[in-house]
Formats: sequence, structure tokens, C-alpha cells
Amino acid sequence: MIETKTTVRVRYAETDQMGIVYHGNYFTWLEVGRIRMLEEIGLPYTEIEASGYKLPVLDARLSYKSPALFDDTVTIICRIKEQPSARLRIHYEVKRDDTLLAIGETVHAFLNSNNRPGRPPEKFAHVLAGYFTQ
Amino acid sequence: MIETKTTVRVRYAETDQMGIVYHGNYFTWLEVGRIRMLEEIGLPYTEIEASGYKLPVLDARLSYKSPALFDDTVTIICRIKEQPSARLRIHYEVKRDDTLLAIGETVHAFLNSNNRPGRPPEKFAHVLAGYFTQ
Amino acid sequence: MIETKTTVRVRYAETDQMGIVYHGNYFTWLEVGRIRMLEEIGLPYTEIEASGYKLPVLDARLSYKSPALFDDTVTIICRIKEQPSARLRIHYEVKRDDTLLAIGETVHAFLNSNNRPGRPPEKFAHVLAGYFTQ
Amino acid sequence: MIETKTTVRVRYAETDQMGIVYHGNYFTWLEVGRIRMLEEIGLPYTEIEASGYKLPVLDARLSYKSPALFDDTVTIICRIKEQPSARLRIHYEVKRDDTLLAIGETVHAFLNSNNRPGRPPEKFAHVLAGYFTQ
Repeated sequence: MIETKTTVRVRYAETDQMGIVYHGNYFTWLEVGRIRMLEEIGLPYTEIEASGYKLPVLDARLSYKSPALFDDTVTIICRIKEQPSARLRIHYEVKRDDTLLAIGETVHAFLNSNNRPGRPPEKFAHVLAGYFTQ
Repeated sequence: MIETKTTVRVRYAETDQMGIVYHGNYFTWLEVGRIRMLEEIGLPYTEIEASGYKLPVLDARLSYKSPALFDDTVTIICRIKEQPSARLRIHYEVKRDDTLLAIGETVHAFLNSNNRPGRPPEKFAHVLAGYFTQ
Repeated sequence: MIETKTTVRVRYAETDQMGIVYHGNYFTWLEVGRIRMLEEIGLPYTEIEASGYKLPVLDARLSYKSPALFDDTVTIICRIKEQPSARLRIHYEVKRDDTLLAIGETVHAFLNSNNRPGRPPEKFAHVLAGYFTQ
Repeated sequence: MIETKTTVRVRYAETDQMGIVYHGNYFTWLEVGRIRMLEEIGLPYTEIEASGYKLPVLDARLSYKSPALFDDTVTIICRIKEQPSARLRIHYEVKRDDTLLAIGETVHAFLNSNNRPGRPPEKFAHVLAGYFTQ
């Protein structure tokens, strides 16, 4: 399994008039966590795009447990639990200290330079394999 | 069943450097569709809030089928398929003409003025009941 | 002079915890007004981009007079007061009925397909000239 | 003079289909810089709001010099150059290393708990005075 942690500080722009963070804005935090995770395991997204690949989102979901507030320091925990083949599934926990704010999931395709879905780029597959194969 | 349709025109601000609409921004479109649906059935959200109630999002999910592009006219179809009790579940289809762009779902709680979850406000329950009971 | 009007309905996502629209979100409304203006005068932005040109923003400013609220119907009035040469200057008024919410301005360059600033594309110059020359 | 520096990492959500950061999103970065500046000088915005005050934006402007790109580490330099009385003026520079990306300015009012503009809260005035009086 791969697990990484990233923190964001809640921006005023991210709140809504309910006085809490607008639910749609959490998906951007998942992105921040995901991008840092890829960087941390040696697969920076800028490099993936430079090699002609994209990782568009096929599915995205979040369950909201407790509201995030302005200025909170929020931790995004990202986990890849299974070796990706044609699809990459990432699990998320969003927390403020020990309080669980949300749990979620995104599923991504690997699109090559012809916008065709397929296997991950070779380097990607290689790095990921290192985490999953014994 | 309740079903309403709303259209939005894709804003440049909503695109990302993949040249398509950023996946997180679809959740705002679901909100636009939801707010119009509530208005259309006689339950404007401003009135719900004025009466001390809120409908925070408990769950949100989307599956992306085909990308939305800048300047597209996108239709958001909202459906309430079952009479809400403590929770309100809304189903969504996002389309450009006959092309399905995404399907999704949100689940909402009814929070009263003490921020306690519970039954919907009376007027809400009454209006909804008119759609579901024979 | 060219003058066009567009309306937007304020989205919940656009509010912040002050209970009003977040100031930065007005710039997206200016974009909506600008895109509709270009379309209305026969220069749809999708066509401008398809011909290899872009109109990036060089300067943007807004003065906020009165807050916009959730669900408001807001009118964006766009004006081009002088014939653009190397730069395009657009003036904006943002109103709710007769109440002035904000006034602002954006200045744009014309970037050709080599990302070099220069004169507007020929069709653009031609259409604009029709509005300004006697 | 007060001067502080904050960094943000550019999010994918902040880009648009021009392949650069959408101009409107820079205003959120100014907010991030401003909030950190207030915190650094001992006036956290959460405390300002808790004491019943708000600092709404009256004017906001930016001049864009060079595009910010996805994943860039961007520095926001905030400066208060004059002691605020009824209004607070903040100057900004947005940079990537030595490259100037944008310069801008925001002007804020002090609204008290009755939503009336006026002098800054006492603590605010006191702290600020320490930076400007000899």
C-alpha cells in the first residue's frame, strides 16, 4: 500500500454562507493530496503530462462527516491499496487533528497522447509495481 | 417522482489545462440544478434558510462519462425518486444535447436552527408529500 | 460604443462565510459578460481561439459598492468605449435591478498562435471597426 | 512598513484551458497572503471576526506580468505602507523565484458588528501603530 499525507490551510474563498467549507471545494483538496502523493513516490504529475499522459477523473465521491472551517489546518491522507492496471483508485481521509471530516475516493484512467485509455505509462507501472510486488 | 431540468453555459473559469471542465466544478452545477428544482416545486432555498433550516451535503458522487467543454450548454436533470424522511436523496444527469456527460447523486440532511438533524420543515414535507402520495 | 447586458444567478458556491459573494468570484462574472458580448457582436471566443488567438487578461480591477447575495439575479453590463488596437479595454457595471454592486475594468492583449502580442485578428478588427468608424 | 511573504503551490483546479492560472484565481492567493500577514503580526483574522469585525474588500486590482503555471511555487509578498485609518490598503507582488508574475492592491473597510464602516478595532489600531509610529 502507498500512503501519503498533505496539509492545506482552509481559505476564506473556500467557505460558503453556511459558515463552513463548500462541499465541492473538498475535491480540490483531494487533488492537492493526490498531486503531492505522486510527487512523493517519484511520479510528478507535470512529468506524467510532459510524457503525453493524462489521468482524468472517472469517478469521484465524498462522504462528509464533520464540517471544515476557515483557517483550519486540514490533513489529506491518500492511499493506493491495490496495484493499478487500466485504472487507478485512490482512497482519501480528510482530517482536522483526530477529527474525521470526510472520506472519499477517486478513480482515474490513463489516457495516452491519442486520448485513448490504456495501461499506465511504463515508468508509472514500474514505480507502482515496486510498492505492490513482493 | 420529481424531475426538473436546468441549463448552464460552461464558463472559461471552469475549464482546466486538460482543456475540459475541471471535475470538481460539476458539483457546483449539481447545486445550480438542485436550487432551481427546489424553486420550481415551490420550496426556494432562500426560504428554507430564512426559516432556520439548512440542507448540508452528506454524500456527493459523480461518474464522468464524457468531458464538458468551454461554452457548452449543459443540462442538469435532477430527480427525487423517493419521499424524503430524515434524508433527501437527489439523482443527477448532466448532458450536452443527447450526450451523457456525467451521472451523480447527493444526499442531504435537514438541519434545524439548532444545527440538529431531523425531519424536514413542515412546509417542505407537505410539498414533497404532494408529489409522492396517491 | 458597444454595450451588452448579461445576467447570472448567484450560486451558493460563490458566497463566503461573510454571507455575501466572495469578491474574487465577480471576476468570473465579468468573464461571462465578456464572452456573451463577444458572441453577440459576432466574435464568439471559441472562434477566436480556433483561429489561434487568445485574449489573456493584462489588468483587472473592481470596486465593490454593495454586496451581491445568494440567489440574486445580477446583471453585467459590458462596454467597449474605444476602438481596440493592440489592447482591448472593457468596462463593466454589475447591478441588481437599479442597485450598483460593482464597477470594473479589464484590459486584454491579443496573442497570436506564437504567443506574441499584436494586432487583433483581421475579422476581429473588421467587426470592431464597424462599431467605431463613421 | 509591514512586509510578509507566503507561498502557495499552484493547483490543477486553478488552471484554465489556456494552460495557465485563471486570472481570477490570483485574488484568492492575495487573500492567502493577507490572512498570513495578519496572523504573523498578531492579528489573526479569525480573532478579528470573533470580535465582531469584518474587513470586506472595497477595491481589488491586479496587473498580470507573466503567467503562473500548474505546480509552480508562487510567493505572495504583502505590504502595508501606510498606517490604516478608516481604510486598509495592501500592496502585493506575486512571484515565481525572481520572476514577477503580478502586482496588485486591495483596499478594505473595517465593518463593526452593526455592519457600519469605521475605525479599526482597538487591538488592530494598537498593533498597527507599533509598526508605523516612531
